[in-house]
Amino acid sequence: MPKISQKGLRMPASPIRKLTPFADKAKQDGKKVYHLNIGQPDIETPAGMLDAVKNIDFNIWAYTASEGTLSYRKKLAEYYNKLGYGIDTQDIIITTGGSEAITIAMMTCLDAGDEVIIPEPFYANYNGFASQGDVVVKPILSYIENDFALPPISEFEKLITDKTKAIIICNPNNPTGYLYTREELEALKTLCLKYDLYLLCDEAYREFCYDGREFISPMHLEGLENNVIVLDTVSKRYSACGARLGCIITKNKEVWTTALKFAQARLSPGMVEQIAGEAAVDTPESYFEMVNAEYKSRRDTLVNALNNMEGVFCPTPGGAFYIVARLPIDNADKFCQWLLESFEYNNQTVMLAPATGFYSTPGSGLNEVRLAYVLNNDDLKTAMVCLEEALKVYPGRTN
Amino acid sequence: MPKISQKGLRMPASPIRKLTPFADKAKQDGKKVYHLNIGQPDIETPAGMLDAVKNIDFNIWAYTASEGTLSYRKKLAEYYNKLGYGIDTQDIIITTGGSEAITIAMMTCLDAGDEVIIPEPFYANYNGFASQGDVVVKPILSYIENDFALPPISEFEKLITDKTKAIIICNPNNPTGYLYTREELEALKTLCLKYDLYLLCDEAYREFCYDGREFISPMHLEGLENNVIVLDTVSKRYSACGARLGCIITKNKEVWTTALKFAQARLSPGMVEQIAGEAAVDTPESYFEMVNAEYKSRRDTLVNALNNMEGVFCPTPGGAFYIVARLPIDNADKFCQWLLESFEYNNQTVMLAPATGFYSTPGSGLNEVRLAYVLNNDDLKTAMVCLEEALKVYPGRTN
Repeated sequence: MPKISQKGLRMPASPIRKLTPFADKAKQDGKKVYHLNIGQPDIETPAGMLDAVKNIDFNIWAYTASEGTLSYRKKLAEYYNKLGYGIDTQDIIITTGGSEAITIAMMTCLDAGDEVIIPEPFYANYNGFASQGDVVVKPILSYIENDFALPPISEFEKLITDKTKAIIICNPNNPTGYLYTREELEALKTLCLKYDLYLLCDEAYREFCYDGREFISPMHLEGLENNVIVLDTVSKRYSACGARLGCIITKNKEVWTTALKFAQARLSPGMVEQIAGEAAVDTPESYFEMVNAEYKSRRDTLVNALNNMEGVFCPTPGGAFYIVARLPIDNADKFCQWLLESFEYNNQTVMLAPATGFYSTPGSGLNEVRLAYVLNNDDLKTAMVCLEEALKVYPGRTN
Repeated sequence: MPKISQKGLRMPASPIRKLTPFADKAKQDGKKVYHLNIGQPDIETPAGMLDAVKNIDFNIWAYTASEGTLSYRKKLAEYYNKLGYGIDTQDIIITTGGSEAITIAMMTCLDAGDEVIIPEPFYANYNGFASQGDVVVKPILSYIENDFALPPISEFEKLITDKTKAIIICNPNNPTGYLYTREELEALKTLCLKYDLYLLCDEAYREFCYDGREFISPMHLEGLENNVIVLDTVSKRYSACGARLGCIITKNKEVWTTALKFAQARLSPGMVEQIAGEAAVDTPESYFEMVNAEYKSRRDTLVNALNNMEGVFCPTPGGAFYIVARLPIDNADKFCQWLLESFEYNNQTVMLAPATGFYSTPGSGLNEVRLAYVLNNDDLKTAMVCLEEALKVYPGRTN
């Protein structure tokens, strides 16, 4: 029998999906499971976007240009320029979701053996994308006591070698919800210019900022044009995860031209999605006001409930729709599995993502979990009652 | 300024797109250009597939399972089992087009430095996918005089080293249209079993076989279950290239499980496409009868016209919708550019793909071009008149 590649053997399985069989079993056993483990929002996709799909008017479902249709890129450039990015249609490459934006950007910047620094906890699939290219992830710890703010630049500098080619940040952050400040981004700018590093910025959650806080992109920083690659997706912005539509934005022409070669190899992003994406740009402001009010309210529900539980702590994140909380538990993986396998309260339980999956540094995140607030407030409240009761009886409780 | 990766520098630009600026210029100058250069069919997508898109009935455009929806995989398994593949729903992973099927299969089987043998001429993007994984392509020449049949197995054996992990074939072949026989596939089976090699079979053009010839897949061969990975797409079958919907099929559970890890990293294939793909399986037989009759007639138009031109030769391919023809020219790249830049007949010209882009062996394909018969018979006839006139006056004509 032929052998699987070493790359394939090393490739991490999705940490979030490891618990799926236990959730399935719990449901088979008749338990109601509140899913706070994944970033699939329950928010409706804007009607205009779905209508664009329903109203398609072509007879041949054809390839588009590898960089995406001109009309969609024009429309997207308008959207980004309202945010002050000052970009051109020719600075965009449309991708199959944010995932492909990340893989193409990584292949463009990083060779096998090259190193990328990522503040952790971080989106687990960055590990997978790095594995695909045999790229080495150098994690740098951020801390819950500090709201998961950017680690000091001196910590980054300790990790920099001649193999270091890039830094990846996610802003607002998945899994922590932390919203980076202008000062933090300016500090990263200085660092990237000093060491000639790319700054890859995953802005999937750009629209979700709370408490009147301002979203700042590295695209807003002058003098960093050749270093910045923004990775984007419509998945969260329009609650359209299944559309698989994202993009790469960069003012660095060499990066754009090289990324296009990777885009050409896979021929084309989806045609219907680009039609839908173009319509989505015209989503009325009221949609985002409604969605943001809803998310903020949910965040407050969770933050209040969590911080009122004995021995539990969580910061109040400024963005995204995730919270990382510290629990009085021995092992988050064991606890999350136990919630599904061995616990129920009124025949209900809750599914959380162990934070261990978001850390690369061994032993980190053992007493932390990520909660995605993708259920309505009533369900969140019930889920939090479940969690509180669970913590009272969990055999591995630590204090 | 940060440096582009070596991988990015090595990544080949799409050879087919190199001529695009010249085609654009020709059109600006008012010339009509007959596009025989790309595999974008002019055939209409089945109405049932488009209706499925128009009739979507959901409010949240959500992720699906990374391996694809169960209902689509069930439907696909029925389709493949009618062809005699004897597979299970759990042998399929849905991918974003055939392109992603190929990249995931390659990452599953091949590490950096590993070698894959591919009979050439071959689909140019295999080079790009190999570059992405730093995989080494070992080409093995097939010859136009021999209808581009499979090279002798002894030629394969000469190339096999301890780095050889896989063979890729495309059946029916792009760019040659050659349809591999059962005997050829049996010979590959013996080889793959002898040397423990994967056999990756790209079956994008499976539906397009002419003259009553039978399509044989390695899935039909007993005893090769652990070696075969079929790569498929709906792009050509349903003239739905822009749907970006394909799949991997393998009975090797280790391959399937490993490929799923790569699929999980990118989360999900498109949701609307899977709904459309499910509907497409019910496309009436009459659609394929109509399409195949049309393609066969076009093939005959081209083959007859080409073989009637002074100094031109082409085989009569058994499948796909491509022909590679030998022309009395010095250099196919120069000739194809000259057609766009410097030639016109009644203010018309023709765009062809130089076969050099489909060969890895230096100096091969210099007097060959690929023609895709994706225009109607009348247009093809006019295009062939253009080509014949062009060959009469081309300054680099060789005989």
